Amino acid sequence: MIKVGIIGSTGYAGAELVRLIVGHPQAEIVWYGSHSYKGESYADIYQNMFEIVDAKCMGEDMDRLADAVDVIFTATPQGLCSSLVDEDVLNKVKVIDLSADFRIKDVETYEKWYGIEHKSPQFIDEAVYGLCEINREDIKGARLIANPGCYTTCSILSIYPLLKEGLIDPLSIIVDAKSGTSGAGRGSKVANLFCEVNENIKAYGVTTHRHTPEIEEQLSYAAGKSVILNFTPHLVPMQRGILVTAYANLLKEISYKEVKAAYDKYYKNEKFIRVLNEDVNPETRWVEGSNYVDINFKIDERTNRIVMMGALDNLVKGAAGQAVQNMNLVFGLDEDMGLEQVPMFP
Amino acid sequence: MIKVGIIGSTGYAGAELVRLIVGHPQAEIVWYGSHSYKGESYADIYQNMFEIVDAKCMGEDMDRLADAVDVIFTATPQGLCSSLVDEDVLNKVKVIDLSADFRIKDVETYEKWYGIEHKSPQFIDEAVYGLCEINREDIKGARLIANPGCYTTCSILSIYPLLKEGLIDPLSIIVDAKSGTSGAGRGSKVANLFCEVNENIKAYGVTTHRHTPEIEEQLSYAAGKSVILNFTPHLVPMQRGILVTAYANLLKEISYKEVKAAYDKYYKNEKFIRVLNEDVNPETRWVEGSNYVDINFKIDERTNRIVMMGALDNLVKGAAGQAVQNMNLVFGLDEDMGLEQVPMFP
Amino acid sequence: MIKVGIIGSTGYAGAELVRLIVGHPQAEIVWYGSHSYKGESYADIYQNMFEIVDAKCMGEDMDRLADAVDVIFTATPQGLCSSLVDEDVLNKVKVIDLSADFRIKDVETYEKWYGIEHKSPQFIDEAVYGLCEINREDIKGARLIANPGCYTTCSILSIYPLLKEGLIDPLSIIVDAKSGTSGAGRGSKVANLFCEVNENIKAYGVTTHRHTPEIEEQLSYAAGKSVILNFTPHLVPMQRGILVTAYANLLKEISYKEVKAAYDKYYKNEKFIRVLNEDVNPETRWVEGSNYVDINFKIDERTNRIVMMGALDNLVKGAAGQAVQNMNLVFGLDEDMGLEQVPMFP
Amino acid sequence: MIKVGIIGSTGYAGAELVRLIVGHPQAEIVWYGSHSYKGESYADIYQNMFEIVDAKCMGEDMDRLADAVDVIFTATPQGLCSSLVDEDVLNKVKVIDLSADFRIKDVETYEKWYGIEHKSPQFIDEAVYGLCEINREDIKGARLIANPGCYTTCSILSIYPLLKEGLIDPLSIIVDAKSGTSGAGRGSKVANLFCEVNENIKAYGVTTHRHTPEIEEQLSYAAGKSVILNFTPHLVPMQRGILVTAYANLLKEISYKEVKAAYDKYYKNEKFIRVLNEDVNPETRWVEGSNYVDINFKIDERTNRIVMMGALDNLVKGAAGQAVQNMNLVFGLDEDMGLEQVPMFP
Repeated sequence: MIKVGIIGSTGYAGAELVRLIVGHPQAEIVWYGSHSYKGESYADIYQNMFEIVDAKCMGEDMDRLADAVDVIFTATPQGLCSSLVDEDVLNKVKVIDLSADFRIKDVETYEKWYGIEHKSPQFIDEAVYGLCEINREDIKGARLIANPGCYTTCSILSIYPLLKEGLIDPLSIIVDAKSGTSGAGRGSKVANLFCEVNENIKAYGVTTHRHTPEIEEQLSYAAGKSVILNFTPHLVPMQRGILVTAYANLLKEISYKEVKAAYDKYYKNEKFIRVLNEDVNPETRWVEGSNYVDINFKIDERTNRIVMMGALDNLVKGAAGQAVQNMNLVFGLDEDMGLEQVPMFP
Repeated sequence: MIKVGIIGSTGYAGAELVRLIVGHPQAEIVWYGSHSYKGESYADIYQNMFEIVDAKCMGEDMDRLADAVDVIFTATPQGLCSSLVDEDVLNKVKVIDLSADFRIKDVETYEKWYGIEHKSPQFIDEAVYGLCEINREDIKGARLIANPGCYTTCSILSIYPLLKEGLIDPLSIIVDAKSGTSGAGRGSKVANLFCEVNENIKAYGVTTHRHTPEIEEQLSYAAGKSVILNFTPHLVPMQRGILVTAYANLLKEISYKEVKAAYDKYYKNEKFIRVLNEDVNPETRWVEGSNYVDINFKIDERTNRIVMMGALDNLVKGAAGQAVQNMNLVFGLDEDMGLEQVPMFP
Repeated sequence: MIKVGIIGSTGYAGAELVRLIVGHPQAEIVWYGSHSYKGESYADIYQNMFEIVDAKCMGEDMDRLADAVDVIFTATPQGLCSSLVDEDVLNKVKVIDLSADFRIKDVETYEKWYGIEHKSPQFIDEAVYGLCEINREDIKGARLIANPGCYTTCSILSIYPLLKEGLIDPLSIIVDAKSGTSGAGRGSKVANLFCEVNENIKAYGVTTHRHTPEIEEQLSYAAGKSVILNFTPHLVPMQRGILVTAYANLLKEISYKEVKAAYDKYYKNEKFIRVLNEDVNPETRWVEGSNYVDINFKIDERTNRIVMMGALDNLVKGAAGQAVQNMNLVFGLDEDMGLEQVPMFP
Repeated sequence: MIKVGIIGSTGYAGAELVRLIVGHPQAEIVWYGSHSYKGESYADIYQNMFEIVDAKCMGEDMDRLADAVDVIFTATPQGLCSSLVDEDVLNKVKVIDLSADFRIKDVETYEKWYGIEHKSPQFIDEAVYGLCEINREDIKGARLIANPGCYTTCSILSIYPLLKEGLIDPLSIIVDAKSGTSGAGRGSKVANLFCEVNENIKAYGVTTHRHTPEIEEQLSYAAGKSVILNFTPHLVPMQRGILVTAYANLLKEISYKEVKAAYDKYYKNEKFIRVLNEDVNPETRWVEGSNYVDINFKIDERTNRIVMMGALDNLVKGAAGQAVQNMNLVFGLDEDMGLEQVPMFP
């Protein structure tokens, strides 16, 4: 059994890690770290875990933790993981960081968009961007994995094949994204109260959202040239789910079949990526609770653009599920182990 | 592998059976019956099953079905199951009926509350009421199981120990129940449109809801005398979940500990019944997607009443989950096989 | 024009006062008091008021306020209003208190249920309980009005005629109430986050909710004898609305017509109380945004009980609307002035 | 008093017309037309109107109606209004059509996108497109007004000044729109059930939605050249509200102030259009229940694009409110008469 420690186990992403790993046949959680609830019973905070998890929340001492476990998940605010890891920790355990600390290769870009100083830039090069379907082989040997952001995973996977195949103009991309509210975290802010979120939709972080450079960097690798794009997130009155609607100019006249073939080339054998049938649009409800990403596209001959769409569960494939998928890869387990949840509807 | 046929697999309860059995290690669905979608691909109707279920919907010919499977689940409107079963069918397969056809022992009561004629009253006596925690032993040998209603399961389990132990007045019980909207089914009615249900709460079926006699009958067995009660269901703008708030007069002065002991006597070893810690109220969110029932109570010394509360997922413990639990019992499997889903939050 | 000051204008009830008074033909707000947002533009906090309200939030200095306005509404936490009023203030202005400070005549009961010391018990006797339909004449001459609670208004009005007419047992009443989330206020608590409230229903304050003694006191006046009851509030994932489902034992056999006559006796000429047609259950959606209370009942001959139901908008008839109704009465205006909003659906 | 007839008064847009006109000081409804509920009491269908509207639903005989009223609103499916109007009707009454029948000047475009034959193309030229802020003067003298679509109103008003001023590339526009579910109407379709819509977001009508040519036509008038664009609507789990996020390439380097000046040039004196303060994004909750459109924009220097955003209540400014605004213009009343509802929050 892989021994697991979670720093930040009482946030929504951390709690989803708990849900998934509790059902994982080859891993067990031995350390429920929590800054806010140290000393309290985990099941008192998340009553769904009553009679399932019998443990108290512990602190976030990474050195002690590194001796106790095989893998540490950090589901924490930006800057914490990079302030905790060091060579000693990385020699002892694998670290899978769900924050953005090691996602962006250019430290200046990181510091500019996040507005904080990076505390351990020496590990940025080594860190592997944990988008499993794209970087599978690199992940297997990594000590430190930068687990991708929720918006990022959905945006990249929706667009990747078309850039890779050179079918769309890399400077024409617009990503209009919509997210459920669990992505906003469990902090007690007025803006996230039920009465503020419910019966409302709004854009936020317009032109300035932090996932923008992460999407651009990864898509630039795919395109082989610089991608600069618009990314606009919106807050939707629902718990889980991200829907990406992305637009780009087609570089040539192209048929449905040809585009479909491009998607299939990269995703046909990917269990967790489902390219839907023609004219079936992705919807967040069809992936809820699961590690699937549903993807499809529509060519608009009138405007010579293509509309690319993707849907995933932000807490699963957009956070904890992908983190477990990364863990499986790192430890040589079946990639889908503990991730076979069928999407729950309604 | 147990071969499973589902009649009514495209309703919400039927679809939940599919979700659960797809993940069951000892059962597989070989017949997806559907009155409305016969001939269509199941995954076209429930896109969550895309690339998971590769089957077309079939008709509802129970004789053919009885030859093809080991167990038939009927997740259908009242009256259908009783019109389809016969001695021949029951000799070949087990039948687990999620409708009310065989729940009520007195055929006149059934016909009065449901307003339809019972088509096979000869099987009512034989049918076992499939409330697993109460009737476990009888279920094991049954051919025909009447799977309890969602409101009923929650109401009975919340109240049962106190009646069994003679602590409350059987004629004083008031059950005020609240249900998510999936309980209303997938029929296309104006009353169930998003804009009609959302931002609203209402009572319905006041003094006349069909689950009333079912609750009364089962609780009367527990009390050893006739229970007549008020049952008032309410529709809540959420997908899943039933919360029961029940009131009764205490027959004597009693302490928290004594009442807790009564609940523990019956439920301490029941995996799927969680009697919560003192002063923790059941909430539907903590059981969503799982087969758990959360139960607690509060004594009111001012009024000499007790408030009993229970929460479950109407599609799992209130329908499909309990049906699978019954299947496990009938076929001698571990009772919780395929039912180990951790409640999903948020 | 009546000059209005609001202490607590940036809470939900305060904001609803603003919405209503902005549309009131004979009143204008000259003081937007706010503890949290003093100095900020009101419309920056409530963007719905952009280009409608052009004012900055002010402090809560009641003495200065008393010189500036004709009436002060206090939409503030328990204990604040009673700490601010004095003879001098009450000689200058009318005070309509939306908190509980002056609702309960017995100061010991107040202090026990609210857990705080009452700062100006000398005004409790003078204060008039502002349930307009019951205490209309007393309200007209009052200096200090205790505006009723939201649960309380709905509970009392649903039950009042039957107690007044002696039709139900005053010791048999059970009130099971359900509320939208705006009733929980705009404080930034984890428990009120979207992801915590949505897709959930729970009871809270079971046997201990503070509105209990307020309901009991008022209903005792109606009954002419002591009423002790169970009151259980529930939190519903919706913005606005309270639904009360109340149960009581009938003291004699009685027909629909007789009970209907009892309701009509008290409510037939009340504009804001709508006794619905037979078998039409109150629903919160039908009163949203308006000052109406919808009421109906159902006799259960099987149990010899009656089920009484009421629905109102907790921010209007349950708070700000009733406060404006009280203001109208106090200042001799038409009682429905500024309160003619048609319920908004969907 | 203006005598009003409504054909289609029991749909959501029709019901909103009722809500608004009931509160209108110079208009009264004398004909509640309804195809589905003819003969039934209006308040039985919309219980919010209990004791407010005392009328039965009538049929849809436009000739009789034309003799009884001064203005007819048609809130009906596509094709109905054009099949009912004739010279005789238009000589007697004003017709304000909330369907798309007279919105598109090119009948072939209409027939292609709507898939139906136009029954009275002879009136298309005469019909005035009732976007009040743009076509105010033409509306005043019209007999037949084509009331704009909900998506259309929001899209056009968000983009109009920048095209008019030649600041953006007319062939670069992408409109990503999000709508509440009341826009889908009150028909009983499975796709609009609570459990299908709630906890979900999806795109629909991708590249093919019928509002596309309407937006393009009106924006082409503004640009003075052909506008072809992408329009993608999404369904959001909320009752009311449309949010438009539109993207376009800037034709030159431009400052915030310059763009703001362009919006102010057209909207500064428009009561119902609120251009928000810098960096404040429109949100649907801030306009709910009102006739306001909230608009703002954000320049992205990195991509040389501008993000334009607009929010309105689809049933008010997107349907019934604008229809009343048109009526006011046609009958020489104050344009905002009966439309002074303050947005309701929460």
